[in-house]
Amino acid sequence: MNTPSTNDAPGRRKFIGDSLKISGALTLLSSPALSIAGTIFSPGKEFTIREIMDIILKEIPGAPFQQTVDTLKSGSPDQKVTGIVTTMFPTVDVIKKTIRLNANFIIAHEPSFYNHADDINWVTGNSVLKQKLELLQKNNIAIWRFHDYWHSHRPDGVGYGVLKKAGWLQYYKPGEPLVVIPSATLKNITQHLKSSLGIDHVRIIGDLSQQCSRIGLIPGAAGGQRQVSFVEKEKPDVLVVGELHEWETAEYIRDAQSFGSKTALIVLGHSVSEEPGMEYLVEWLTPKLGGLKVTNLPSNNPFIWV
Amino acid sequence: MNTPSTNDAPGRRKFIGDSLKISGALTLLSSPALSIAGTIFSPGKEFTIREIMDIILKEIPGAPFQQTVDTLKSGSPDQKVTGIVTTMFPTVDVIKKTIRLNANFIIAHEPSFYNHADDINWVTGNSVLKQKLELLQKNNIAIWRFHDYWHSHRPDGVGYGVLKKAGWLQYYKPGEPLVVIPSATLKNITQHLKSSLGIDHVRIIGDLSQQCSRIGLIPGAAGGQRQVSFVEKEKPDVLVVGELHEWETAEYIRDAQSFGSKTALIVLGHSVSEEPGMEYLVEWLTPKLGGLKVTNLPSNNPFIWV
Repeated sequence: MNTPSTNDAPGRRKFIGDSLKISGALTLLSSPALSIAGTIFSPGKEFTIREIMDIILKEIPGAPFQQTVDTLKSGSPDQKVTGIVTTMFPTVDVIKKTIRLNANFIIAHEPSFYNHADDINWVTGNSVLKQKLELLQKNNIAIWRFHDYWHSHRPDGVGYGVLKKAGWLQYYKPGEPLVVIPSATLKNITQHLKSSLGIDHVRIIGDLSQQCSRIGLIPGAAGGQRQVSFVEKEKPDVLVVGELHEWETAEYIRDAQSFGSKTALIVLGHSVSEEPGMEYLVEWLTPKLGGLKVTNLPSNNPFIWV
Repeated sequence: MNTPSTNDAPGRRKFIGDSLKISGALTLLSSPALSIAGTIFSPGKEFTIREIMDIILKEIPGAPFQQTVDTLKSGSPDQKVTGIVTTMFPTVDVIKKTIRLNANFIIAHEPSFYNHADDINWVTGNSVLKQKLELLQKNNIAIWRFHDYWHSHRPDGVGYGVLKKAGWLQYYKPGEPLVVIPSATLKNITQHLKSSLGIDHVRIIGDLSQQCSRIGLIPGAAGGQRQVSFVEKEKPDVLVVGELHEWETAEYIRDAQSFGSKTALIVLGHSVSEEPGMEYLVEWLTPKLGGLKVTNLPSNNPFIWV
């Protein structure tokens, strides 16, 4: 996530309008008679990848960007879309499930090919990447990365999705860098985040019995410079991140606490920390596409904790 | 760690020679009568920081390096050394313990100021860094980073220390990129690493019941490009790292396993994965300094796992 922007009030108003439209559509889409209902009640318009990208980018301030990692990683802009899947990481597992859904367009928040720029030559002769490309090509699966744009939406699509799933939307104030919740122990906040976001294990630096109210929420892997700058400026009771560099943010927080700082740290894991943003994308995108199915397939936490 | 070099046979012979000299010294140094014994049996020579750095660098091929992060982060080269502490991260806690030991020279593998280059302006107005600098200056504590040089020692000082502490030196063959141990399940190997290295929790991607014999050991945070290239080239049964980027190595390993790869992954944690190398530095350095006390103060894992 990028932390909520200071000037997203218009975006938020727009969002609330969309939400009202969405709620009816969602009731329909969640019924077992989905595909039949879609055929009956939608105009049945076919979209190309390019058309869907255009529909989305119309809602993103400043889009299209000159420089962005949000490019098409496989497939063609002229391809007809049979169904859309949203996810954090377009893993092989997610691709196979997409094929089984008869969908062919994956909108993924994070890289397809194990590096931020999706440079296919990042590691020479990468046999896994080669098999992944073959799987995509054989099944005509398109992947579009939707990272910079979704974070640039107002409100930030990932941050908003996480707040929504955590049940904290009522505490979200556009323009405020922190979310102020009723005071609770670090232990209780951790348990709430684990249960509401469906996370099995987290890593923490801090006193589990300390009271926290002012939450700094930066899902994903924003980098140490940004995470540490945020703590220096906002002094949250707890910083919640997806992923960090241990030699940067973790050591900074540890030293800060040795000097008496009360800022605790919760590390959720990268994939699970931002997936709610890609889940929320389903709700945001569906009413714009007249019946085309949009499904979130969570890429989940990759680790066993032993 | 860098993986064991292909041309470290001379270094290894040198190491074995030193080890024989060390074993007697270690017995002496571990007795409670340490400081008295040191006075009686050592020439009592005083060293400056510069002299100790010179003694160490004489053993590092190609040193001194033109470009390196291994610079003095606090203190002066002309300072007389009262005692040496080795550690992974020179945390505030380690600095305070160093002061209590009446030592004044910390040799640390990782950064002091939360970024690889130890740029003190990495985050503007960093209040934690400011307090840390004041603590160091007030107590005349010098910190030297010993990262590039220790990895450039033959054998790599960190890798060697980890193999030694894991009880795997018998399987170490200079020039071989993998350590081949008797076949065991991933679960048993994990338990062995946790108990021998003193690690409470690790993260794993893989089948805990699979048999593993060919171990790729890359402690620390070598970066996704190097970790993935290593797996592509060597196809270990398990890759053991300290830290990783989840969007790089973790996703690569997860996809590889979806395509049938048997390479598992164990993530130890950065600090605990390389500390054995700084513990081994005590053994390596002590006999070169005629009685000056060298102590390892482990910086330990910073996280609570919930």
